Amino acid sequence: MTFNERYSTILEKSRTRLCVGLDTDPAWIPEHLKGETNPILAFNRAIVEATSDICSSYKMNLAFYESDGKRGLEALEGTMDAIPEGVIRIGDAKRGDIGNTANHYAKALFDVWGFDAVTVNPYMGTDTIETYFQFGANCVFVLALTSNPGSKQFQHLVTQGKPLYVHVIDQCLEAFGDADQLGFVVGATHPNELGEVRRRVGGNIPLLIPGIGAQGGDTQGTVHANNGGVAFVNVSRGISKAGSGEDFAEQAREAALKFVAELSVGDPDERVAPDQS
Amino acid sequence: MTFNERYSTILEKSRTRLCVGLDTDPAWIPEHLKGETNPILAFNRAIVEATSDICSSYKMNLAFYESDGKRGLEALEGTMDAIPEGVIRIGDAKRGDIGNTANHYAKALFDVWGFDAVTVNPYMGTDTIETYFQFGANCVFVLALTSNPGSKQFQHLVTQGKPLYVHVIDQCLEAFGDADQLGFVVGATHPNELGEVRRRVGGNIPLLIPGIGAQGGDTQGTVHANNGGVAFVNVSRGISKAGSGEDFAEQAREAALKFVAELSVGDPDERVAPDQS
Repeated sequence: MTFNERYSTILEKSRTRLCVGLDTDPAWIPEHLKGETNPILAFNRAIVEATSDICSSYKMNLAFYESDGKRGLEALEGTMDAIPEGVIRIGDAKRGDIGNTANHYAKALFDVWGFDAVTVNPYMGTDTIETYFQFGANCVFVLALTSNPGSKQFQHLVTQGKPLYVHVIDQCLEAFGDADQLGFVVGATHPNELGEVRRRVGGNIPLLIPGIGAQGGDTQGTVHANNGGVAFVNVSRGISKAGSGEDFAEQAREAALKFVAELSVGDPDERVAPDQS
Repeated sequence: MTFNERYSTILEKSRTRLCVGLDTDPAWIPEHLKGETNPILAFNRAIVEATSDICSSYKMNLAFYESDGKRGLEALEGTMDAIPEGVIRIGDAKRGDIGNTANHYAKALFDVWGFDAVTVNPYMGTDTIETYFQFGANCVFVLALTSNPGSKQFQHLVTQGKPLYVHVIDQCLEAFGDADQLGFVVGATHPNELGEVRRRVGGNIPLLIPGIGAQGGDTQGTVHANNGGVAFVNVSRGISKAGSGEDFAEQAREAALKFVAELSVGDPDERVAPDQS
């Protein structure tokens, strides 16, 4: 089963492009969970339980786990276990390193942690990404145009008639386009560029789209720009921080349902048809 | 005490620009250590014991520890403890992520692991690096021109008359040049560019220079190009893999001493004078 087939299978069930970001900051965990042995894990389990039937995937940014030391890594391990079979687990690690070292990162992310998809940084060249494609039917999301304000500083520098992030996309398509595992990260905060990227790569290349909600990205603009393509639209704080009391998980589900509805606007039968775009 | 002062202090003692890379691949750990509870840790302890009086620093690439799961992270922890006080511990993590997330990576690297210096990836913009400068008198090495063959693919793209890696250097100097914590990674495999970078940034900005030995970088060319500036010249396999038998640690010391001698050529009194360049 290819990565896109795995994605289609989960879509059949969840009917949504929503990716729930579990970038759990200890600073905003509800009071009543702070006494737990592992507050991040307790929080994540509740969010997963409340949302796993209405999303295609979860994205865990490793920074939030690494910063809590061993307990953080235990939280990540427990979170991976809590996510039901079939729901896609994205390791947002943004690693980038040379040959043999990259191989060790890929091994850590795919074999040790068991992620189904990862994010990687292209700055060092496509030779540093190659090894990630050797780990089964997983997806490799290459950072193209990120969602932060400073993304334009280097990613928009124009050479030979196109900006750096388009060079990244073109070179990756050339090197890995046939692998059925290649995806790109494009921030929802750049709807025009997102639309251009979607046209450039076609409908079947998965895009991981962060930046909705707290970062200012707009759901409607994103859906329009994505034009029905294979996409993981990530919402982190907009779901995880929807409530702060004892009912935070119900609040998270309410918020998630709202995003699911907004993200399916314009789809035939209000459901996603990733392979018909 | 600033980072450069810390570096000068260790130089007084070790008299060398040598940084020993502990990128320990389980694949080439000597046979007689493979039965240890934690082979990587046993190997690293022996290398540190054999070399800590003749180097300024150790560079641990996190990939090699993350790929061995919990045992790998225990190896990293034990290695950090084994390195004597004053010797600089560089966390080669090449992280890069947006605001609050970057803050969590910085916390993980400086507070949880206790590194004195780290490497970061600039692709996402200088706003994603800023937070690393808030963690005491530590050094932040920004990837500029890396040592791998594919480094030229994006890093050499020319915009507004200069290649991407020079834009990275200039923008970082502008944003963080006053902090006395900024450094750059420039591979020894590009001696001409290394010389240009050294002239561009002056003698007091630390350069972390990988690529000597196994990757093809040349010691003499590196010393010449660096022109006496503050530098951490990293050698990993050239030292760690110098021997493969029971005497691997002695072999590593022999190899390290050879690099120390080569790296000090041309220094006044055969010692390093980083502030007089």
